[in-house]
Amino acid sequence: MTNLSTSISLQTAHFASETTWNDVPDTIRHQGKRALVNFFACCLAGASAQAIGMMLAVAGTPGGARIVGRTATADAMTAAWVNAASANILDFDDTLPDTIAHPTAPVAAPLLALAETRTERPIPGRDLLMAAILGIELECRIGRALSIRHYRRGWHITSTCGGLGAALACGRLLELSPHQIVCAMGGAVAQAGGVVETLGTMSKSLGVGGAARAGLLSALMATRGMTGPSQPLEGRYGLFAVMGEDVEPHDVVADLGSRWELADLAYKPYPCGVVLNAVIDACLALRMDIADMTALASITVSGHPLLKERADRPGVGSGNLAQVSAQHAAAVVLRKGRAGPAEFSDAAVTDPDTRALAARVSVAIDEALPMGAARVTVLRANQSHERTVLEPLGSAGNPMTDLDLENKLRTQWANAGIKGSPDRLIDALWSLDTRDDAAELTRLIG
Amino acid sequence: MTNLSTSISLQTAHFASETTWNDVPDTIRHQGKRALVNFFACCLAGASAQAIGMMLAVAGTPGGARIVGRTATADAMTAAWVNAASANILDFDDTLPDTIAHPTAPVAAPLLALAETRTERPIPGRDLLMAAILGIELECRIGRALSIRHYRRGWHITSTCGGLGAALACGRLLELSPHQIVCAMGGAVAQAGGVVETLGTMSKSLGVGGAARAGLLSALMATRGMTGPSQPLEGRYGLFAVMGEDVEPHDVVADLGSRWELADLAYKPYPCGVVLNAVIDACLALRMDIADMTALASITVSGHPLLKERADRPGVGSGNLAQVSAQHAAAVVLRKGRAGPAEFSDAAVTDPDTRALAARVSVAIDEALPMGAARVTVLRANQSHERTVLEPLGSAGNPMTDLDLENKLRTQWANAGIKGSPDRLIDALWSLDTRDDAAELTRLIG
Repeated sequence: MTNLSTSISLQTAHFASETTWNDVPDTIRHQGKRALVNFFACCLAGASAQAIGMMLAVAGTPGGARIVGRTATADAMTAAWVNAASANILDFDDTLPDTIAHPTAPVAAPLLALAETRTERPIPGRDLLMAAILGIELECRIGRALSIRHYRRGWHITSTCGGLGAALACGRLLELSPHQIVCAMGGAVAQAGGVVETLGTMSKSLGVGGAARAGLLSALMATRGMTGPSQPLEGRYGLFAVMGEDVEPHDVVADLGSRWELADLAYKPYPCGVVLNAVIDACLALRMDIADMTALASITVSGHPLLKERADRPGVGSGNLAQVSAQHAAAVVLRKGRAGPAEFSDAAVTDPDTRALAARVSVAIDEALPMGAARVTVLRANQSHERTVLEPLGSAGNPMTDLDLENKLRTQWANAGIKGSPDRLIDALWSLDTRDDAAELTRLIG
Repeated sequence: MTNLSTSISLQTAHFASETTWNDVPDTIRHQGKRALVNFFACCLAGASAQAIGMMLAVAGTPGGARIVGRTATADAMTAAWVNAASANILDFDDTLPDTIAHPTAPVAAPLLALAETRTERPIPGRDLLMAAILGIELECRIGRALSIRHYRRGWHITSTCGGLGAALACGRLLELSPHQIVCAMGGAVAQAGGVVETLGTMSKSLGVGGAARAGLLSALMATRGMTGPSQPLEGRYGLFAVMGEDVEPHDVVADLGSRWELADLAYKPYPCGVVLNAVIDACLALRMDIADMTALASITVSGHPLLKERADRPGVGSGNLAQVSAQHAAAVVLRKGRAGPAEFSDAAVTDPDTRALAARVSVAIDEALPMGAARVTVLRANQSHERTVLEPLGSAGNPMTDLDLENKLRTQWANAGIKGSPDRLIDALWSLDTRDDAAELTRLIG
């Protein structure tokens, strides 16, 4: 499958086209389901955001595909665009450590839209799951080849590589030939973009949504014979040369089928910068230790220098900035005992009690703590309480369990005010490989 | 207007928002009209391309905006996408020398779509013309700041900067505030992309069409309050830093309002590489000299080394490659006496007589000839005929006249089989600043 005599792009397309269910290890099949459970949770959490409403108002006309978490429907292209944006808007979605890509949003959204709108015959759950797994896997590999240097240069990797993941996944679901998939990849590269400057603003979602739409569009164009470059990844002016730095194209296909990027996918328990996870876990634990949370004299958050660099942000004025403020995170979690989207909203930031408490939080460096760890020290009534978290929930050493992911979906389902119970959706996701019609997934949402 | 204390992005937005009709010199007003005459000619020429049909089949549903050169209609977003792609697909559209950007296609298409679909009140012709002039001007300035290095790095500048031109032009037409226009620019930067690797394939059009759609979308989102970065151009991870090399951001606004990039816009008489223009002019002249064009023994095309480097391509197999083949260009023009889209089509390439003649063409270097010039020498019946063209039609020294542009539109109108006469459209374009409803333009096409 990794024939060195063919181009890297074509090898990539062959893998997307020819990998069978039996080629995929059980753990990876299960990881694909976990990614989808998490996708629906994030979509439900993000769908109520103002920017999502604007996107629908500007480009939405009713159609055959549902907008997850809203009552609206749209054509496939718009649904892919909006649902991908919803799933990523809070940065609550899955992450491939090292590259900081959020791979599932731009892949799952167009697949669902295709499943809902291709009415000739139902698309079996296993086909959608396979397409998602292969699209995510190859998207992550392309991102890994581009390396963290791509992000450091200012590329929002979720957007740039997302379109390729979407094209590969949709190409698989549409049963394109490897040659057609290369053409679809070319269409995705023709539209690849998204810069870090837009993070923290609504315009970010145009990049992420645009990637999902671009990939779906390119795959559909390829079914009709659209031509594209033969080496969209590694060509002289292809993705790697133009948007990368010292890329080794062969990294995309090295160990393909034996090593899986999906194994490394991490999930976020809290909709905020991953650097704050340990702070939040420590504050949740402190609430167990301290019976009365009023009249806290001072709070000190200590960590690796990166924590101070990234998250020492007093007096933030928006939910977006609160997502990277240790002051806000410590204060809101100590007060509320929760760290969900509501705790990182614009409203949460303007709450006077939270602001007052946040003003008592200071951020200190403790070189002895590893990256990702944190210690929180609270002074109250001349007593000092302290908790140190070395491996916060969601880290490689302490991953979210299946139940954690289910509960994340349950919580966001409730927050979104969806009628009925999420049990049927959760069941359908865990048993997706045996379901007759992948389009049922969105129909199971109230 | 070029207050140095505000950001470059905001100064750019102020210029788009606040420039009045009286601020625009007559020559530039007229250049704006020329750009639109040429836009319609290119749209009519490109609309029959296979890729355009595919785009409509995949994403088109009937709506309030027309697809120029076809009977189809679509929603504004899709019409902007398809019409921009049509106008550029043959590379027959206007060019800003130095940067090799084709600025009008991604700007004019969304403006027309807006004019057709905003039914509250008609949009006066002058408003559309002003929006086009300002969008093109600022798009060219952003491209000039990025410089030719942007293109050499592999960025298809028509796509990357096209979205900004579209956002600025649509922002102007929608009467956005400067702050809102900066947000629209942020949305365009979030979606900016397009690489040179896709040129010569259909996937190129997804980049160019995508730019038009992205700019329109961003402007419409900004009307509803979409937030974006405050410095989408010059920010740390904005357009210039991420997609440029040694960019001087101030170049965008230097001499704004006194020097106009539009003055340098060039128009193409032939749908092929600009390096072939002199070859074609020489061959057209030779047809005047030689009564009988059969039995040509040999043809020699001489020029600057760049001509040989770019266009010494014997035996090409597609219309796309024919566009950069001196052999094909000389042969087809000597045989047909024309150099329109039909002469650079796949069908023209496979014509056996043209192929036979092309096989007798050789390309030679003449260091004495300046770049852009060419000499064609034909041997027939022991007689030698020679023509040298130093400034081909379309060059700065020999620009296309208004009548040339009108005739380009007339020819493409006829080629497209549009009913009736193009006179009313041509009249409406030359008098656009006095017309009540810009939406009439597309309605005047049969």
